[in-house]
Amino acid sequence: MKYNGCHYMQRTSIFIVQINSVVRQFLREKNMSKRKMNAFYAQSGGVTSVINASASGVIQMARQHPERINHVYAGRNGILGALREELFDTQQESPSDIEKLKTTPGGAFGSCRYKLKEVSSCNNEYKRIIDVFEAHDIGYFFYNGGGDSADTCLKIAQVSAEMGYPISAIHIPKTIDNDLPITDCSPGFGSVAKYVAISTKEASLDIASMRETSTKVFILEVMGRNAGWIAASAGLAASRASDPPHIILFPEIAFDQARFLERVRQTVDQEGFCVIVASEGITFEDGSPISGSGDKDAFGHQQLGGVAPALADLIKNEMGYKHHWAKSDYLQRSARHIASATDVSQAYAAGQQAVERSLNGESSIMITIEREMSPNYQWGLGSAPLIDIANKEKYVPTDFIRPDGYGITMNAVDYLLPLIQGESYPDYIDGLPQYAKLKNKLVPKKLSQTFNLESTRHT
Amino acid sequence: MKYNGCHYMQRTSIFIVQINSVVRQFLREKNMSKRKMNAFYAQSGGVTSVINASASGVIQMARQHPERINHVYAGRNGILGALREELFDTQQESPSDIEKLKTTPGGAFGSCRYKLKEVSSCNNEYKRIIDVFEAHDIGYFFYNGGGDSADTCLKIAQVSAEMGYPISAIHIPKTIDNDLPITDCSPGFGSVAKYVAISTKEASLDIASMRETSTKVFILEVMGRNAGWIAASAGLAASRASDPPHIILFPEIAFDQARFLERVRQTVDQEGFCVIVASEGITFEDGSPISGSGDKDAFGHQQLGGVAPALADLIKNEMGYKHHWAKSDYLQRSARHIASATDVSQAYAAGQQAVERSLNGESSIMITIEREMSPNYQWGLGSAPLIDIANKEKYVPTDFIRPDGYGITMNAVDYLLPLIQGESYPDYIDGLPQYAKLKNKLVPKKLSQTFNLESTRHT
Repeated sequence: MKYNGCHYMQRTSIFIVQINSVVRQFLREKNMSKRKMNAFYAQSGGVTSVINASASGVIQMARQHPERINHVYAGRNGILGALREELFDTQQESPSDIEKLKTTPGGAFGSCRYKLKEVSSCNNEYKRIIDVFEAHDIGYFFYNGGGDSADTCLKIAQVSAEMGYPISAIHIPKTIDNDLPITDCSPGFGSVAKYVAISTKEASLDIASMRETSTKVFILEVMGRNAGWIAASAGLAASRASDPPHIILFPEIAFDQARFLERVRQTVDQEGFCVIVASEGITFEDGSPISGSGDKDAFGHQQLGGVAPALADLIKNEMGYKHHWAKSDYLQRSARHIASATDVSQAYAAGQQAVERSLNGESSIMITIEREMSPNYQWGLGSAPLIDIANKEKYVPTDFIRPDGYGITMNAVDYLLPLIQGESYPDYIDGLPQYAKLKNKLVPKKLSQTFNLESTRHT
Repeated sequence: MKYNGCHYMQRTSIFIVQINSVVRQFLREKNMSKRKMNAFYAQSGGVTSVINASASGVIQMARQHPERINHVYAGRNGILGALREELFDTQQESPSDIEKLKTTPGGAFGSCRYKLKEVSSCNNEYKRIIDVFEAHDIGYFFYNGGGDSADTCLKIAQVSAEMGYPISAIHIPKTIDNDLPITDCSPGFGSVAKYVAISTKEASLDIASMRETSTKVFILEVMGRNAGWIAASAGLAASRASDPPHIILFPEIAFDQARFLERVRQTVDQEGFCVIVASEGITFEDGSPISGSGDKDAFGHQQLGGVAPALADLIKNEMGYKHHWAKSDYLQRSARHIASATDVSQAYAAGQQAVERSLNGESSIMITIEREMSPNYQWGLGSAPLIDIANKEKYVPTDFIRPDGYGITMNAVDYLLPLIQGESYPDYIDGLPQYAKLKNKLVPKKLSQTFNLESTRHT
């Protein structure tokens, strides 16, 4: 090990380019030698209904290359598994269970919200990870996550090269938020978009039939703290301008209370009811959130609230309309029962592609989804350097949002609609979906030292 | 018209028996004469994802009997359509659209929450309804609703007989709450049960994979103000005792804060996470609701809150666990995309059966679902006198709830599981379910007088 504490790296682009060049050279040589090594796969951050499809893609593709990849080890609870040397041996899983991962929501190996410390600060986290990788003869690192994870993946590639044990590190995109840059879309998003569009359409039919004597206003709160992609997808429920959802609230657009209330009133006057889909991240002009007032609930504790109940109360008190509200929360991101077949295919293919590119000597990249629009939507896979991905967010562009700020444009429909195509149903037994139940057998530890996390840091 | 104001009836069982006897006699005679008449169908109360399947059953069965039933008129917004003489002529709808009603959520003709005044008080609502029925030659009344509607249906049968224009009035059960007596289950419930069981299972997989470094407690609030059937159905997500949901909160069981918190702590200690499914109607021992504190939100208005956020805040403040919560609200009762095939079949068959029994001269009954358990679950249709149905609620029985009050027993599983069998998927075009869009053409009015509702009374 050539690792010598914390002075080994300055985080500059020039250096990164140099390191990446070293990694690629090494990997090309390794590729030439075709030495058989193990792979490490980990799930990171909030899971999606299709992240296990990416896992399935990685494992199935690796199994097609037994001459190059021995076992695929999966980190128990994401990168924590690497730090603690807790590796599940996926070789122990049956082909049918690996196949069934395609229809299983959640993270089959556990995920985590854990941000590694900066490389530039003195810490031994990266060193530990590389030690574990070296002990288990791991030459391939596949990290399945969002923007933060892309940063971690890049650093592991860099540090491993610096330490003279270069790993092929490839990032497999995953986020329901669809906020990763460069890639046309992020695996995980299409299924949430489909769930939200269908749920909005269904609930709207319900309210439309109750509007005369009961509920006039319905509010659905969806995820998306900074980017309004999920809220935007509710717009797909509408076929015509007057169809619900009548108002979409994006985090990209400052919330204007008076204007919003006027629009609600107009809509109820014209349509007899009003369906609102609100992103959890909407804020007032000054950036303050519209929920989370600091008031107390029935237990005398601080009311954290939510956007939907806050809007519902506002409307109730200002206009007296009877209302209902829903907050789909984890239901939306785990709704594998109505996943988009397109999304599942992309998630699976991204996993496969990561292995193929790794075997081809590539590293420090994220797999991307590329779109072709002629004559119809088609997609392919590409890649982007991780340095261009890490810690960047992609917001809903202005030309996707209607000039009034309360709906989506045809440009948005053209972008979103292909992503929700196809229904990928899981198998059912006894009325309930059958999901993979993996054995998740731990590989015997090889290092004498254990690694104590300073704390489980939340990000 | 023999109607002479408000002195014509005392609501006693003896009288009802006499009236029912008169109705049956009249209907038998009418049956003998086989005079062709029109039918009136209306949807009442909160809609379900399968109420339109019952409508489809009524209309398709009526079309099989053109020698007896001329047109089926549907009330615009339920019984309001009868009061206002706003009748949709379903004869104008194509067979394919009537077929598509089987997969369309919401109420295709509009529903209402409107309680007719008591027969014993001076009012002209019942008289108006019978006047409209007579003007449009309506001999069959099919009312699709819950307990309140059963009462209305009974009164219409009684008043019409008293007025010398006896209507065959048959109630078609519908409620997601599953609280109608006598019938084994209520159409609409099985689909909500399936949605809640699947959603609980999916979200639990999500949380299980995040538990170490992120969310420890997840709370799903489901409908059910007085009866905990929907909350109970979440228990189907568990295969073993330790499986989520770990805690179900029933409105039938008083909420004990200290005991609840202790159980949450135990569960997190043992399982690493805790999934809670709470009925919206849970209360403390003294009957006071656990949400709705009267505190103010960010807008300075009263916070109506909800059970899920109240429980989440309690747990957060008492124990500091990171939590998430969801409230499925209208999403659960409109989720036609994952309806139970068994439920859809029962809703459809109940509609058909109502027409058949009406043609057979029956009246003042509700169609019931009857269960046979040998050797496997099978169901048939029966009927019950409306006098035994109206204004009664069926709660979750004690032997369906675990002794600790936080889960369901095998008796409950045996009851619930058959009701969620089968997946009845709608057709999809362009990634979204295709629902019926009816023409809903109004029949020309025949009465010179309009009817002004005193107010739209909410129930």
